[in-house]
Amino acid sequence: MEGYVVGVDLGGTKILTALANLEGRILAKSRQLTKAKEGPEAIINQIVASIEEVTGKANIDNSKIRAVGVGCPGPLNVEKGIIYNTPNLNLKNVNIKEALEAKLTAPVFIENDANAAALGEKWFGAGQERDNLIYITISTGIGGGIIINRRLYHGANDSAGEIGHIVIDPTLDVECGCGDQGCWEAIASGTAIGRLGREAIKQGKQSKMTDLVSEIEEIDGATVTKAAANADKVALGIIERVTNYLGIGVANLVNILNPEMVIIGGGVTKAGKMILEPIREIVAERALDAPAGVVEIVSAELGDDVGVIGAIAKALVEIGVLL
Amino acid sequence: MEGYVVGVDLGGTKILTALANLEGRILAKSRQLTKAKEGPEAIINQIVASIEEVTGKANIDNSKIRAVGVGCPGPLNVEKGIIYNTPNLNLKNVNIKEALEAKLTAPVFIENDANAAALGEKWFGAGQERDNLIYITISTGIGGGIIINRRLYHGANDSAGEIGHIVIDPTLDVECGCGDQGCWEAIASGTAIGRLGREAIKQGKQSKMTDLVSEIEEIDGATVTKAAANADKVALGIIERVTNYLGIGVANLVNILNPEMVIIGGGVTKAGKMILEPIREIVAERALDAPAGVVEIVSAELGDDVGVIGAIAKALVEIGVLL
Repeated sequence: MEGYVVGVDLGGTKILTALANLEGRILAKSRQLTKAKEGPEAIINQIVASIEEVTGKANIDNSKIRAVGVGCPGPLNVEKGIIYNTPNLNLKNVNIKEALEAKLTAPVFIENDANAAALGEKWFGAGQERDNLIYITISTGIGGGIIINRRLYHGANDSAGEIGHIVIDPTLDVECGCGDQGCWEAIASGTAIGRLGREAIKQGKQSKMTDLVSEIEEIDGATVTKAAANADKVALGIIERVTNYLGIGVANLVNILNPEMVIIGGGVTKAGKMILEPIREIVAERALDAPAGVVEIVSAELGDDVGVIGAIAKALVEIGVLL
Repeated sequence: MEGYVVGVDLGGTKILTALANLEGRILAKSRQLTKAKEGPEAIINQIVASIEEVTGKANIDNSKIRAVGVGCPGPLNVEKGIIYNTPNLNLKNVNIKEALEAKLTAPVFIENDANAAALGEKWFGAGQERDNLIYITISTGIGGGIIINRRLYHGANDSAGEIGHIVIDPTLDVECGCGDQGCWEAIASGTAIGRLGREAIKQGKQSKMTDLVSEIEEIDGATVTKAAANADKVALGIIERVTNYLGIGVANLVNILNPEMVIIGGGVTKAGKMILEPIREIVAERALDAPAGVVEIVSAELGDDVGVIGAIAKALVEIGVLL
């Protein structure tokens, strides 16, 4: 088979687009700020322009594009290509597949962003040679993608892998964006780490965190992990608390799905071993022996490009290159 | 295709065996008390004798048996046919597949009991026509089986679906048999309901439960649900507490796996709507709209025969009759 594919990582702030050959090697990239406020048509036109940009850069004729994969925030209908509702992109019930296919010659396939990232890590990152894995992204929220028998598992209506909203501690009075209480992402995301940092300082605790910002409200997840890396006790206490929740959540997923591998990505993992090691320890301690004994818990490998590489993987899976 | 299959439900107290045709219709049954203390050979001989009993009853030649399915407690190696460790059967690292095949002409396939029950409900019970479902059994413990794309999902080493050991409330000081704290089965199984009943009476609470037993230690899950059905406030409070945990656990599974259907079986479900309705309400409230909107939460249909019917389904799946 000859030709190329395009991957598009459609985010609320930026659109990353890349042209790749059928081995998944990236030949050209484009990065644009998303015209999120200008509505669906402007975004569609931006994506089309970004595809023309990468084919132009690589000097490839558009007719040689075999498929376009688009990773975008959910909820969505993967088969039909509809984005139901994405507040920070101002897209509501938009059939992005049809809109793009009307302007392109190649078929377009959309995928939830966390699911696309899971595909990226499975085919080009930490999960190669693994058939059953869970990808977890921990940043402002917590998202996930489940790979079963080498394929993304979508569930009954493309909502599988909404792991950020499993309840980890129902006794905690922390409301989640979804309206529920004690959700994983409400108590263990980067956002939660930042909130715990600000709360600690407001409670009058002495911490290096205050030296890293000009005012309390600037404290975010990165501030806390930075202070913790510098042995700040208050920050270390927050990291311990949050990694405990992260470990419980991963142990639950390991008991339910018995994966070969759990791949952990997202901004919070920039803190490295400080996050990963406690998660491993808690899973070893809390999950059952059989699933805990077999699972590898590793860092994601693709970094900030995981979204666009995942979109490339989506395109390659759909045209049967990745099986 | 012609012939018959046999299903064996191997439990700590009894062995249920049934002969079925290739449509899964049961033609003869056998029920024996398990000689659990007499060791592996006695159990193997019992199973063989029970198969001879059902073929004799139906007047079927043994050579017409196409496959034997055996549902048994785990952990086990499904492919090799090994039971690793089953305390209440006194089996340790026993290759039950090889041992039975040495005495039979048909191939033998083993399956974890909760997984076998999931197969039974999928093919002959509440889950027919569904491709993605979760079966949950709530009795002395909590177990589960996950069906994905019409097939049982086994995970990396046959441990998938160990949902009884997901942590639902890490703040609860209730130790589970697995050594962890706050596991679902430690706080929401029939055993947990009985324990909460005994604790309430020991704390001096007035309840109809005491009228149903001759001494406090006799109070079990059934006592509590019976008292609750008679509007006993203390018992109703226990049921409310436990169904809240049950609902949180099901909501978590719904968010993770986005199933078409959740089938709830096991002894506790004999309490009927008192258990099922609150679970449905909590899932509607706590799970995300998309997966909560699509999932049907229903009672298991196969009752006490679910194990042996599941073992029949296992045999029929393995020989390609059920696809």
